[in-house]
Amino acid sequence: MSTFANLARPDGRAFNALRPVRITRQYTRYAEGSVLVECGDTKVICTASVEERVPPFLRDSGQGWLTAEYGMLPRATHTRGDREAARGKQSGRTQEIQRLIGRSLRAVFDLQAFGPRTIQIDCDVIQADGGTRCASITGAFVAAHDAVSGLLAAGKLTASPIRDHVAAVSVGIYEGAPVLDLNYAEDSACDTDMNVIMTGAGGFVEIQGTAEGAPFTREQSNMLLDLASDGIAQLVAAQKQALGV
Amino acid sequence: MSTFANLARPDGRAFNALRPVRITRQYTRYAEGSVLVECGDTKVICTASVEERVPPFLRDSGQGWLTAEYGMLPRATHTRGDREAARGKQSGRTQEIQRLIGRSLRAVFDLQAFGPRTIQIDCDVIQADGGTRCASITGAFVAAHDAVSGLLAAGKLTASPIRDHVAAVSVGIYEGAPVLDLNYAEDSACDTDMNVIMTGAGGFVEIQGTAEGAPFTREQSNMLLDLASDGIAQLVAAQKQALGV
Amino acid sequence: MSTFANLARPDGRAFNALRPVRITRQYTRYAEGSVLVECGDTKVICTASVEERVPPFLRDSGQGWLTAEYGMLPRATHTRGDREAARGKQSGRTQEIQRLIGRSLRAVFDLQAFGPRTIQIDCDVIQADGGTRCASITGAFVAAHDAVSGLLAAGKLTASPIRDHVAAVSVGIYEGAPVLDLNYAEDSACDTDMNVIMTGAGGFVEIQGTAEGAPFTREQSNMLLDLASDGIAQLVAAQKQALGV
Amino acid sequence: MSTFANLARPDGRAFNALRPVRITRQYTRYAEGSVLVECGDTKVICTASVEERVPPFLRDSGQGWLTAEYGMLPRATHTRGDREAARGKQSGRTQEIQRLIGRSLRAVFDLQAFGPRTIQIDCDVIQADGGTRCASITGAFVAAHDAVSGLLAAGKLTASPIRDHVAAVSVGIYEGAPVLDLNYAEDSACDTDMNVIMTGAGGFVEIQGTAEGAPFTREQSNMLLDLASDGIAQLVAAQKQALGV
Amino acid sequence: MSTFANLARPDGRAFNALRPVRITRQYTRYAEGSVLVECGDTKVICTASVEERVPPFLRDSGQGWLTAEYGMLPRATHTRGDREAARGKQSGRTQEIQRLIGRSLRAVFDLQAFGPRTIQIDCDVIQADGGTRCASITGAFVAAHDAVSGLLAAGKLTASPIRDHVAAVSVGIYEGAPVLDLNYAEDSACDTDMNVIMTGAGGFVEIQGTAEGAPFTREQSNMLLDLASDGIAQLVAAQKQALGV
Amino acid sequence: MSTFANLARPDGRAFNALRPVRITRQYTRYAEGSVLVECGDTKVICTASVEERVPPFLRDSGQGWLTAEYGMLPRATHTRGDREAARGKQSGRTQEIQRLIGRSLRAVFDLQAFGPRTIQIDCDVIQADGGTRCASITGAFVAAHDAVSGLLAAGKLTASPIRDHVAAVSVGIYEGAPVLDLNYAEDSACDTDMNVIMTGAGGFVEIQGTAEGAPFTREQSNMLLDLASDGIAQLVAAQKQALGV
Repeated sequence: MSTFANLARPDGRAFNALRPVRITRQYTRYAEGSVLVECGDTKVICTASVEERVPPFLRDSGQGWLTAEYGMLPRATHTRGDREAARGKQSGRTQEIQRLIGRSLRAVFDLQAFGPRTIQIDCDVIQADGGTRCASITGAFVAAHDAVSGLLAAGKLTASPIRDHVAAVSVGIYEGAPVLDLNYAEDSACDTDMNVIMTGAGGFVEIQGTAEGAPFTREQSNMLLDLASDGIAQLVAAQKQALGV
Repeated sequence: MSTFANLARPDGRAFNALRPVRITRQYTRYAEGSVLVECGDTKVICTASVEERVPPFLRDSGQGWLTAEYGMLPRATHTRGDREAARGKQSGRTQEIQRLIGRSLRAVFDLQAFGPRTIQIDCDVIQADGGTRCASITGAFVAAHDAVSGLLAAGKLTASPIRDHVAAVSVGIYEGAPVLDLNYAEDSACDTDMNVIMTGAGGFVEIQGTAEGAPFTREQSNMLLDLASDGIAQLVAAQKQALGV
Repeated sequence: MSTFANLARPDGRAFNALRPVRITRQYTRYAEGSVLVECGDTKVICTASVEERVPPFLRDSGQGWLTAEYGMLPRATHTRGDREAARGKQSGRTQEIQRLIGRSLRAVFDLQAFGPRTIQIDCDVIQADGGTRCASITGAFVAAHDAVSGLLAAGKLTASPIRDHVAAVSVGIYEGAPVLDLNYAEDSACDTDMNVIMTGAGGFVEIQGTAEGAPFTREQSNMLLDLASDGIAQLVAAQKQALGV
Repeated sequence: MSTFANLARPDGRAFNALRPVRITRQYTRYAEGSVLVECGDTKVICTASVEERVPPFLRDSGQGWLTAEYGMLPRATHTRGDREAARGKQSGRTQEIQRLIGRSLRAVFDLQAFGPRTIQIDCDVIQADGGTRCASITGAFVAAHDAVSGLLAAGKLTASPIRDHVAAVSVGIYEGAPVLDLNYAEDSACDTDMNVIMTGAGGFVEIQGTAEGAPFTREQSNMLLDLASDGIAQLVAAQKQALGV
Repeated sequence: MSTFANLARPDGRAFNALRPVRITRQYTRYAEGSVLVECGDTKVICTASVEERVPPFLRDSGQGWLTAEYGMLPRATHTRGDREAARGKQSGRTQEIQRLIGRSLRAVFDLQAFGPRTIQIDCDVIQADGGTRCASITGAFVAAHDAVSGLLAAGKLTASPIRDHVAAVSVGIYEGAPVLDLNYAEDSACDTDMNVIMTGAGGFVEIQGTAEGAPFTREQSNMLLDLASDGIAQLVAAQKQALGV
Repeated sequence: MSTFANLARPDGRAFNALRPVRITRQYTRYAEGSVLVECGDTKVICTASVEERVPPFLRDSGQGWLTAEYGMLPRATHTRGDREAARGKQSGRTQEIQRLIGRSLRAVFDLQAFGPRTIQIDCDVIQADGGTRCASITGAFVAAHDAVSGLLAAGKLTASPIRDHVAAVSVGIYEGAPVLDLNYAEDSACDTDMNVIMTGAGGFVEIQGTAEGAPFTREQSNMLLDLASDGIAQLVAAQKQALGV
């Protein structure tokens, strides 16, 4: 991929460079896990709330649950968006994202071992510069981990139900070149946008690639997955550093 | 992939076999394009309606639009589902699917050439045995093609804005083996489920792969994409045969 | 009424002729009763789903329930209508019709004998050429009958709770003449439109007559009820033939 | 019908007797027409508001419009009902009734002659003892008449667009006998309930008959229509007396 | 305050004069308490309904509850307002008012002594000339009192849970002068509008003062509270006279 | 008030002490004004967005508008609250608060001078420890001020439409003593809660006092208003310091 070394990205990064990642734990006071995750100018508050009950469809199953909601402050973006609460419904995009967050975290959770309780993840974007769903997943994992640590410390769990890390990153074809971790300027102009979600062990949890302009080839798909794998390894390292594990 | 030749699929198909595909044009009387698409026991009515106007965000742009809605009859499935109209909102799943259908068809449409009109796709599942979103896309393409043919015949368009075929198929890891075109029984039990949308020329429009159970590997991902490419070539052939082109 | 023998109806029928009726049982696979009813170009899928529970207001009453929902595919009609699920609510017309369908079927059901279970009727119009509510009732009866037969065959019921047939037909004053079974062209242009629902024994379950233009007279009302009685006798015969009883 | 002379009705009326009717004009201050209509213990405030515009579907048609809304105070009834505004939607019953009121009044209105303005009828039940939709129609006619008189007096109309009176009454089979103007106790216990809407000239605008219990016969239908005709003649007389015409 | 004696109010009242108050009990038949309260041309029907249950958040607490809903007939006002039930939601203003009514009455209710039952207040404005929320509170107290009297008479309560009267009045700065009990004309033109809710003993339950134009001073605030205290003493006297206590 | 000097407040403050106030400007990147306001543990992001249009009711009036929306992250509080966007409607409390914020800021804005544009305020609570509506108003003023400064700098305004500062604080009766700036623990336990909104010049914009327990006296009201005046003077000073004016 060295042929892309001369690509001029809007913020000067190399094609295979992540934006600076910052993970701040205990960002707010009350949640069992509370994280501010920053990927460049994208900033998301991720909280994990523990509730000692499960949704109706799991009642009496002994199994736990983890689910997620996602929102964006109206002025997280360049121009103000509608407040979904005022409009009276969540957009299709919001629903897609929150379903993705929940699915991704459940992929590394042993819900049976978690017992009849629920982790409710909330990801609220306070500033958006592309990649909010990926940042949400990466941050939510840390918040959920803190919530589980609290349950372990309190003796409510004897072993962690978390089987592996999970993190997410976007990749795309920008000006003909594969790039890692698109910001908003790149995301708006790219031909292909792919969100990749992987475990710490390098397994794929989710791949969502979309041709915004021209269709993409199998070869491009391969280059994108390579980039994503590298990026996620760095994100998992950042999670570990934040967690001190 | 010959190692999967002995896999026992619930309906006896080979791992790389599509279900029988049937595309019936002019299924209902009034729509500009109306198709019943059947993929095994999955049956979807796809209609394309032409409206000589565009949504507000395209007003005065000269460009056209194509959008899609998706629904399922309450008893298309083994147990009755809620009627979304009665419940007063579309589920997140429904919104995800209808956004995907619209995006997929727009990928092969030259909306600038289409002019200030809209094609409204409606995909309504009357019987569901897995793969309803893929069948919807495959059928909707034919309905949209018929609608465009009508505009050409009426002299409202002088050249087709359709640049290529588009079709969709699901693939997945079922009992450890990659399989093509999952039915409901396989879909419910599979480890990984991937929806792949490609053009007639073999470009990728969308890849959506999800690990329902264990994460999947890069090698598995490659096998799935191979299977999908083969399947879509057959679906495009079925579209061409139905259209007589 | 021989004076109306020379009336020119849009489709050439005699003033007292039904459109061709076709009732196809087992139209879809999963429902306990599934019928495609066709009255000319009006086509409705009617399914009956059995659920072993009752709504809250009947809990502990020992009595069963039968209720109905109605919908129309957006492009069942000449111009596309809004999708009610997308708009977030059912229209007043839809609610009127589904209440009517439920009431009509309950009129021939012994709900006490049916026991604490519910039949949920779904009537979905896939093509509309007038008379969709009447076709829905006529078809839903057959679907409900099949659902009951299934319960009898399974030993869950020892005697049928169905006391009589029920069917529906529209009549109206078109170009000054009483006509049976109006299609859309007639329905749009008629002065009076009356929906009549009767049992196999000839009792009235519901009469809903509306003057769209000039008020109608008692004499006209009598002529319309005569026509309807004849039409319903034929529809009940078609139900019996379809059911093989 | 003399055979029904000995029927014991809950409030002691003869089978063919209306409840006392009272029509109070100018009941509230601001509406162009404002009427309190009382039929026994049923009390409805009917207002007619004139707006110098028409709904979008009539724009540039030159034609006017009349439409109606209906509501019931939560404690108009024996036990408190939900407030529809709080629940966030109108029930199917409410929608049925308000559509009926609008249709009935439009039947005697020359909307072409009325010009590009709208009469908005509001019928709000403050006390309900059966027959609220019929009382609403009877009262709304008087409110609309007052609103038209105001337009005539102001020189905005030169001739009345009202072609005839319209009024409504319920009839039913109670304890085997046909009765006129059912109160709540009768309505809850009757076998057949029929709402009949007629013009001053005796034409039928709407007949809505429903078998709540056993189906009804043609002979019963005839008796009910006779009773209704007599009742409506008295209601039209009450309207005329209230209007001083 | 004698300096304001020459102020010309639209309806000729002295600056410190209430509009005529009329409280009619047993206004409708079915509610446990039913009051028509008239303050000048403002007319509100207030009903109190007793239900032998409590909302979920009080279950098993032994405590009772009192809550209120508020509505306005669409044509209670000079120009017709939207019907909230048709629009599908209550306005912010409606919600503010009904929360205020509930809070005000609960301030004089011993909910513990009331036991596990609920009083549901409904205030429906049939004619609005300013001060509808205050009239609602003043009238609702009487309706609730009647409902409690019924429970005492029926032996369901042995002592009244009502600790004191509560009533409400608006005051404001109109043309520079403090005035009591603003009508609509004054309310629309005033600089400051304050709603004051007090007990029979003269304690404040709620003060809500808003500068519509220029901010108000501490001195003005004091004058307004003086006026309000006088007004409320008269309203409490009117309540007592209506109740015959 | 020295008698209250020994009151033990939960966080050790004197009865007349504010919590530490911190106002951070330019908290997020995109909004024309963006402020993080912290009052102790209460933290609110306030943004001001400028839009070059006005709502329909002001079209062609030449006047501008300022309006506000308010929200709370689900886990801003001790136990997680429902996400209003997911529930599909804003609570009555939310609507009350956002109406109050808008009204308060408009009180110091010359909307005529502002011209045909809108300032949209968004207040989103990320951590709640009592007094969120007051903190929102205090912070929103600074955000709006920054937005106006931007318009002045860009030459779109030649003079500021802001006539004075506005800030808000809560006061209450806690354990019998008047206290300034209640935190959540005090707010939950207090007898009277009063929100006071004042201008920099000391005029009252809004007083909202509520007896949660026992009614409050005129003397208590006076003490509370004194405390509030002192507190607001300090908040206005903090605003000025943050703005460097």
